Amino acid sequence: MKDAHDMQIPSFDDVIAAHERIRPHIHETPVLTSNFLNRMTGAELFFKCENFQKAGAFKVRGASNAVFGLPDAKLSRGVATHSSGNHALSLSYAAGRRGIPCTVVMPRTAPQAKKDAVRGYGGVIVECEPSTSSREAVFAEVVAQSGADFVHPYNDPRVIAGQATCSRELLGQVPGLDAVIAPIGGGGMVSGTCLTLSNLAPGVEIYAAEPEQADDAARSFRAGHIIADDAPVTVADGLKVPLKELTWHFVQRHVTDILTATEQEIIDAMKLTWARMKIVIEPSCAVPLATILKNPEVFRGKRVGVIITGGNVDLDKLPWL
Amino acid sequence: MKDAHDMQIPSFDDVIAAHERIRPHIHETPVLTSNFLNRMTGAELFFKCENFQKAGAFKVRGASNAVFGLPDAKLSRGVATHSSGNHALSLSYAAGRRGIPCTVVMPRTAPQAKKDAVRGYGGVIVECEPSTSSREAVFAEVVAQSGADFVHPYNDPRVIAGQATCSRELLGQVPGLDAVIAPIGGGGMVSGTCLTLSNLAPGVEIYAAEPEQADDAARSFRAGHIIADDAPVTVADGLKVPLKELTWHFVQRHVTDILTATEQEIIDAMKLTWARMKIVIEPSCAVPLATILKNPEVFRGKRVGVIITGGNVDLDKLPWL
Repeated sequence: MKDAHDMQIPSFDDVIAAHERIRPHIHETPVLTSNFLNRMTGAELFFKCENFQKAGAFKVRGASNAVFGLPDAKLSRGVATHSSGNHALSLSYAAGRRGIPCTVVMPRTAPQAKKDAVRGYGGVIVECEPSTSSREAVFAEVVAQSGADFVHPYNDPRVIAGQATCSRELLGQVPGLDAVIAPIGGGGMVSGTCLTLSNLAPGVEIYAAEPEQADDAARSFRAGHIIADDAPVTVADGLKVPLKELTWHFVQRHVTDILTATEQEIIDAMKLTWARMKIVIEPSCAVPLATILKNPEVFRGKRVGVIITGGNVDLDKLPWL
Repeated sequence: MKDAHDMQIPSFDDVIAAHERIRPHIHETPVLTSNFLNRMTGAELFFKCENFQKAGAFKVRGASNAVFGLPDAKLSRGVATHSSGNHALSLSYAAGRRGIPCTVVMPRTAPQAKKDAVRGYGGVIVECEPSTSSREAVFAEVVAQSGADFVHPYNDPRVIAGQATCSRELLGQVPGLDAVIAPIGGGGMVSGTCLTLSNLAPGVEIYAAEPEQADDAARSFRAGHIIADDAPVTVADGLKVPLKELTWHFVQRHVTDILTATEQEIIDAMKLTWARMKIVIEPSCAVPLATILKNPEVFRGKRVGVIITGGNVDLDKLPWL
C-alpha cells in the first residue's frame, strides 16, 4: 500500500512532468467572468471552470497523473481509493482510459449521480459508512485483498502535482492576478495551488474557503497543527475530509487565510452562480464565492481567480428546494 | 406603431450592419462539445451557448439591433414589446444601455426570474393573460398610450437581422457544418439562421425543433400556410407563439424539416444537458437535443450546430422535480 507518510513533497518539476503526462486526458478548462458578480463584489472574478473538466471535476488531473505514471509492473493489480465522490469517478475515468482495474470505497450516502458515473467509467464500488473512520477501515480491507496501488484523494504527491496543473493553466489564461481562492476539504487543490503559485507567482495571495460546519482546516490553520473532525455535516459534500500531512505542509506555508461560510450562505452562492452564470456547480465550489460575498473588504479591487472545482450534482436533490 | 405587415425582408447586408451595431453590447458566445452526447447520438454536436449571452438569451441580438438602430427622434418615446420572457428582458437590457424607456407586456404566468430580470434592467412590466389574443389586446393599449416603437419579438426585420448574427458567429467558430438545428416558436432564431446560412453556406441543412404540444410551426410547414394556435401548453415556455409573415417567409423557403418532441423527451434532454454538460439551459433549448435523440438517423455522422437559445430558468420550479 503506497502512502504519503514518508512525506515525498512534490516539486514544481513534478508539476511540469504531470502536465505533460495528463494533457491528452484532460481539458484546458475555460475561464468565465460575470459583470453582475463583479459589480456585486467590487472585485474582478475569474472563474476557472473545472466543472467542465473530464469526469466533471478537477480531481481528474491528480488521478490521471497517478494512473498514467504507474509503472508497467503495477498495472495488473490496478488502483484503489476512498473518496466522497469526485476523486472516485476521476480515478475510475483515468483507470478506464488506461485499461486497468479500479476499486473505490464510497460512503453509502454519496450522491447517486456520482455512484452512477463511477460505474459508468468501469469502476467497482465498495460502500462504507459516511465517516472517516469507517471509510479508512473498509478501505484497508480492499487494498489488502487486491494489492492495488492506493491513490489517496489528496495526501499523495502525484495527486497534488496533478491538481497543481490547474492554477498553472489559470496563470496563463489570466494575467495579473492578485489572489486565488479555492475550496478546502482535504486540501489537495489548495496544496496544488500553493505549489504552483509559490514557484511561478509568489506574490499572489492564496485563500482557502471552507464550510463553517466543517471548519477543521480553518481551526488547524489558527492552531498551527492538524485538527481532524470525523464526519462533519455540510451541504458541501466534497469538503468533509480532514487535512493530512502533505496538504498541511503546503497549507501552513503558503495560504494567506482560510475563510468560512454558513450553510445558507453556501446555498445562496450556489444558486446565484447557477442563475447568473448559467453553469451547474457543486455546493463545494460555491464556498469561495460565499466567502467573497461575506468578506468584500478582503477582495475589493483585486483580480481574483476562483476555482470552480466540479459540477457533479444530484439534480434531483438541489439544496435550495 | 411599426409593424412588419409591409414585409420588409431583411437582407444579408442588414445582418452585417446589425453585427457591427450590436458588437459592443453582446458576447461572442462559446461553442461547447460533449464526447458523451456525441457517442450517444452518433453525430458531432456543436452547442452554440447563447445561455451565456448578455441577458441570458440570444434575443439580446435582435433587441439590441432594434434599439441601437433607432433614430434620435424616436428615442424619447422609447420601445415596447410583448414577450413570453427573453425578448422582454433583452429589450429592457438594450434600452437600459441606451438610456431610453422600455415597456413590456408579459403573461402573468411568466417565470418569476424573467420578471425580476426585466425590472432589474429598468423595464416596466404590464401583465396580460397567457394567450396570444390577450397579449395582443393589452399591448395595443400600451402602444397607443406611450407612442413607443414596437419591437416585435420576432416578426420584425431588425430583430431577424440581429438573430442572424448568431449563426454568422457559429460558422466562423465551427468549420464544415452539415446542419444547424434551433428551436422554433415564433421563428425569429430560425429565420435569422436561414438568412445567414442561405447566404454564407447554402449547403448546410436547417432543422427546426418544436414541442409536440405546440407544433403549429410543424403543421404550418406541412400545410404550406401559417397555422396559429392560441395558448398551447408546453414546458418549453419560449416556444408558445405562432409564426408570422416575416418568419414564415424564411421558414417555408429554407428549412429542411421541422421535428417535434414530447414534453417528457424535452425534460429528459434538458436534465441530460445539465447533468453532462454542466450548463443551465431553458426547456426550450432542450428541444433540439430531444429531436436529435429521437431521430438519430437524420443526424448520424453529421457535424451539427445546436443553438442553445437561453438559460433563464426559474430555479425553484424545475420541470423534473
